[in-house]
Amino acid sequence: MRRVEIVPVEVVVRNRVAGSMAKRLGIKEGVVLPRPVVEFYLKSDELDDPLITLDHIDVFNWASHDEVEQMIEMAHRINDILLGYYANIGINIVDYKLEFGRLSSDMDTLVLADEISPDSCRLWDMKTGKKLDKDRFRRDLGGVEEAYQEIVERMGIAE
Amino acid sequence: MRRVEIVPVEVVVRNRVAGSMAKRLGIKEGVVLPRPVVEFYLKSDELDDPLITLDHIDVFNWASHDEVEQMIEMAHRINDILLGYYANIGINIVDYKLEFGRLSSDMDTLVLADEISPDSCRLWDMKTGKKLDKDRFRRDLGGVEEAYQEIVERMGIAE
Repeated sequence: MRRVEIVPVEVVVRNRVAGSMAKRLGIKEGVVLPRPVVEFYLKSDELDDPLITLDHIDVFNWASHDEVEQMIEMAHRINDILLGYYANIGINIVDYKLEFGRLSSDMDTLVLADEISPDSCRLWDMKTGKKLDKDRFRRDLGGVEEAYQEIVERMGIAE
Repeated sequence: MRRVEIVPVEVVVRNRVAGSMAKRLGIKEGVVLPRPVVEFYLKSDELDDPLITLDHIDVFNWASHDEVEQMIEMAHRINDILLGYYANIGINIVDYKLEFGRLSSDMDTLVLADEISPDSCRLWDMKTGKKLDKDRFRRDLGGVEEAYQEIVERMGIAE
């Protein structure tokens, strides 16, 4: 374990349009983005995590310019790894949330500081499009446990 | 009159926090921004003009990279002019909306394509902080006509 100070922004990586992006921008869920999109949201339960721009991050000093660049670069690398990993087990990784922290031992270095799980990802079966993530719960689709079990099995980490 | 094709994004320039920015980000109205902030919104009554990022503009092809740069540069120049103009008549220009159009005769050239008026600006009296804009109407403060008349008189264009 390494201690970190959490950067007060959430980073969302999207490979397809879904969820809040579909609703905000009036675009059909499932549309494949021409390239992965990285969005920033202010971490605030009270404000319901609003979408923010790079300019907001800068003027309100939520992260430095260098930190934003690090987060964008890491988000794209993480995305490449996850796209490859999930493709291998027949799953489209549609979007997901990342959080970063400043290392207490070296505040200039950011590290990924939160789990990546079906709770914070959208995972769709490549063949059937079946949702295998928290949307089953959020959208009252049922079969939440079975979906998580399915992911765990495909990952080969079932107990 | 020159014909234009309207770029489907609205540009908002902010010198102080107010309105939707105050609400979205939980920051007190009136806070002076360390530098002017330029925001983009998708022009869509149906979607209630959602805030968008530069990445959204790019992937959904709402404007080209060059057009975005032109809009940001023009927004800052317009802001300098307006700050000077309104300071001269004792008014803080808090924020306002701009729209741009592509010239039909030269689609690579963007021009300012909408009025700038108290309907689309926040204008506060420098001494008293009194609102002299559409917020008098939106927030049911009364004295809408008198405020607009006040602006017109200070501008020296009263009939």
